[in-house]
Amino acid sequence: MIWDAWGVPAGHHPLSERVRTLLTQVFGVSGNPVVRRDEGDVPLRESALTPAQRAGLAEVVGADNVSSDHRDRVRHAGGKSTPDLLRRRVEGPQDAPDAVVFPADHDQVLAVLAYCAEHAVAVVPFGGGTSVVGGVDPVRGRFDVVIALDLRRIDHVTGIDPISGTATLGAGLTGPRAEELLAEHGLSLGHFPQSFEFATIGGFAATRSSGQASAGYGRFDDMVQRLKIATPSGTIELGRAPASAAGPDLRELFVGSEGTLGIITEVTLRVHPVPETVTYQAWSFPDFETGAAALRSVVQAGAAPTVLRLSDEAETGINLARSGDIGGSPVAGCLAITTYEGSPAHVAARSAEAAELLAAAGGTPLGEKPAKEWEHGRFAAPYLRDALLDVGVLCETLETATTWSNLAALKARVTAALTGALGEQGTPALVMCHISHTYPTGASLYFTVVAKQLDDPLGQWLAAKRAAGDAIVAAGGTITHHHAVGTDHRPWLPDEVGDLGVRVLRAVKAELDPAGILNPGKLVP
Amino acid sequence: MIWDAWGVPAGHHPLSERVRTLLTQVFGVSGNPVVRRDEGDVPLRESALTPAQRAGLAEVVGADNVSSDHRDRVRHAGGKSTPDLLRRRVEGPQDAPDAVVFPADHDQVLAVLAYCAEHAVAVVPFGGGTSVVGGVDPVRGRFDVVIALDLRRIDHVTGIDPISGTATLGAGLTGPRAEELLAEHGLSLGHFPQSFEFATIGGFAATRSSGQASAGYGRFDDMVQRLKIATPSGTIELGRAPASAAGPDLRELFVGSEGTLGIITEVTLRVHPVPETVTYQAWSFPDFETGAAALRSVVQAGAAPTVLRLSDEAETGINLARSGDIGGSPVAGCLAITTYEGSPAHVAARSAEAAELLAAAGGTPLGEKPAKEWEHGRFAAPYLRDALLDVGVLCETLETATTWSNLAALKARVTAALTGALGEQGTPALVMCHISHTYPTGASLYFTVVAKQLDDPLGQWLAAKRAAGDAIVAAGGTITHHHAVGTDHRPWLPDEVGDLGVRVLRAVKAELDPAGILNPGKLVP
Repeated sequence: MIWDAWGVPAGHHPLSERVRTLLTQVFGVSGNPVVRRDEGDVPLRESALTPAQRAGLAEVVGADNVSSDHRDRVRHAGGKSTPDLLRRRVEGPQDAPDAVVFPADHDQVLAVLAYCAEHAVAVVPFGGGTSVVGGVDPVRGRFDVVIALDLRRIDHVTGIDPISGTATLGAGLTGPRAEELLAEHGLSLGHFPQSFEFATIGGFAATRSSGQASAGYGRFDDMVQRLKIATPSGTIELGRAPASAAGPDLRELFVGSEGTLGIITEVTLRVHPVPETVTYQAWSFPDFETGAAALRSVVQAGAAPTVLRLSDEAETGINLARSGDIGGSPVAGCLAITTYEGSPAHVAARSAEAAELLAAAGGTPLGEKPAKEWEHGRFAAPYLRDALLDVGVLCETLETATTWSNLAALKARVTAALTGALGEQGTPALVMCHISHTYPTGASLYFTVVAKQLDDPLGQWLAAKRAAGDAIVAAGGTITHHHAVGTDHRPWLPDEVGDLGVRVLRAVKAELDPAGILNPGKLVP
Repeated sequence: MIWDAWGVPAGHHPLSERVRTLLTQVFGVSGNPVVRRDEGDVPLRESALTPAQRAGLAEVVGADNVSSDHRDRVRHAGGKSTPDLLRRRVEGPQDAPDAVVFPADHDQVLAVLAYCAEHAVAVVPFGGGTSVVGGVDPVRGRFDVVIALDLRRIDHVTGIDPISGTATLGAGLTGPRAEELLAEHGLSLGHFPQSFEFATIGGFAATRSSGQASAGYGRFDDMVQRLKIATPSGTIELGRAPASAAGPDLRELFVGSEGTLGIITEVTLRVHPVPETVTYQAWSFPDFETGAAALRSVVQAGAAPTVLRLSDEAETGINLARSGDIGGSPVAGCLAITTYEGSPAHVAARSAEAAELLAAAGGTPLGEKPAKEWEHGRFAAPYLRDALLDVGVLCETLETATTWSNLAALKARVTAALTGALGEQGTPALVMCHISHTYPTGASLYFTVVAKQLDDPLGQWLAAKRAAGDAIVAAGGTITHHHAVGTDHRPWLPDEVGDLGVRVLRAVKAELDPAGILNPGKLVP
């Protein structure tokens, strides 16, 4: 990952002349790219790791796997939210972990945690570094030293069970690498969040990730069968059966625990055969409400496609629905994307049933082209955000979920909060939205916000984010459907689980991490 | 509920002459019914509730709702496992709660818990009293007094949301009453465990119940959207959205907590429209392995019927597969039951897809009659157990779940453990089994065991149960798929979640129930 932007250099393309002209006209930005710093030139605060600590950690993982190199530190400086990226564009020294440690396996993770608990070193577990909520920020808490624990070496695939459709994956495997290794067995995980190309299995589990094919294959937490977790208090392995009534499901304590209760080192996941057939169908709906009702009818009938999403009028108009690019041929109303995967018989049956419901609910089929275009560009949006940030445009996303009956009200309230908070600052905002995850009882809402940057774009955005978060909570939504809590959503966690829920989380943490070294400042207020 | 047997008197029928003759021939039992005691004649240990405690509780719920009447106490003496029923058939005094308290609402539950925590009174939450694992036994723990907290008065239905398909139900509603009230709005929950007629919404949630239509509507835990829980440390409300990434899913700590962490007073559940169409189709498979593979193919294709179950050769032969009765016209091989619910279009599409897969996997369609017979008799088996117990036949069930690839091995091992443990005691056993709950990665196994009773049938069964539990754990199954832990499965909980998992549960309990009054002796070792 580039230290101060999304992804890899090859993914970045400057905005076209036409788009820059458009942005100048609409937002009044200069359209001239800012100069960014090479990672080698970024000043970092000096590493606080003592020689004794370095030696102690090296004893566990080997000297080659404890690094205080400038490049390693700067590449573990945090995640990829717009605030993260804006902070990296600020002159002056950057915060970074004091060292990066690369354990080889579960036992080394366990030993690193034991060492750090004894020697007062904070530990930030690090996968792909794609957090957009501050989840991997090098927060020291009450410790002098913080390390990033990079799990990339834990990249095994074991226990392939094609009969049961399960496989055991190391936490450090990236999405593409996991798919590649599973494909050797004719299997696929089917988890494709926007962070897919860089994020890891452990990160998906620790943050309750949800992918673009969630209608078909479920959220990542649905896929989790078994977890192996290293904590300062020892190892815990959970999940003995596809389903169980043997007490509380403790897996659900660790899925979404964001490295604060333990470090997930291995996940046994539900997988499926690489689909024999994939078909694509795009739909147009006259408006968002009609489209949402159509999606609802399909999901509640038990006829959900593999991918099922709906862009609102604004997103459809600006064509973000179809790719990471801006512009292209227009689609009227609201664009919905469906894909169907499986055996030819399953795809035929399911797509026929869904098509009938979508048409009955007011949809017009648009053929497969817009759906294929969406698939082609589906991981590109974060690159576009960087290009916009570089030319003085503020761009960020946020997301929530609620019941179907509350969806329109929540959407309106969050949109008003965002346009209000940015408008008050003199920067009228364009707010776009889509539904990307559907459930029988409700759906997610994913907002993209674009406005002109002020001189203090970070402060500008944080005001908007605060307004949006408050609006979400006031309107009965969840503060995050799939981005997790990290530092950024922490103020709203009591709204989610109540003060007593927070006390429960603290009690669990005190049992598993009595020294409090695990990812300080994240998740638990 | 009858105090020493399942259900209501009208459900009980003596065995036919033919069946009694058969039992005498096969098991060598006398076939003569034992004499059972009327609940009014059962000696109980004197209530230990002090006048001060009675007054204190009456202040919360009203004097009429604190009962130490003989009849109330004897009817809350415990659950309905075979060991429970055998203990009730033993002469001498029976254990019972010192009082039964009937709170009217959440706030009264909260106040009762506060009172009991302060005055050292153990509290056993009580719904339908259908536990088969000792979950509602009046265990005092380290307290002198134990009350049963009967939630029957908390029977409201609120928040009907037909758009989102959700409804909020009081914990004390029984299955039939919940369906009746939902039906007034054209809605259904679709949760039909064998305990359906008596068990309650709160009990379903507290024990991770799973119903016979789980293939279509999911387990009860899948249906839970929101929970309201009273604890000695206060109220906790959980579940803000259909799905969320806002940290650990704390609902999953309370679902399955069996009244040890708090008392669930209200559950918001996913519901669906009363199905327009229901179709039935039975199938025959040459053997269990072929049938299991067929079920697997349907579930993994995403084409599961609403009900999907398969009896093994023994269960099919004795015809338990089709009803609670014994005998009737024989079906060769292994009988599978499917039903399909929903709109006519959905039922047509789904049943066609599933039928093709089941036929391709070696199934022979048998028409709808055996499936309708199964549905007709599906709540009757516990009555049959009572009839068998009364004539000297030992009869009990137990269940587990595992992955598809491990299913045959687990089944063989548990069967061998049961036949071995009973055979060693000189009582050869008939062990039958079915799959009643299926998942993409595996399935449940539900065993029914029948043998001649020895003079100490309780000791006889406990030896068999111990052998079966050890076999389940050794063979990689879960100690319970849907019966919960209670007292009876507690020895195996460390096998499920490890010692550290048990410590986590204890830490949560210490936070929520510092005095330890909540359901002592259950779940947590």
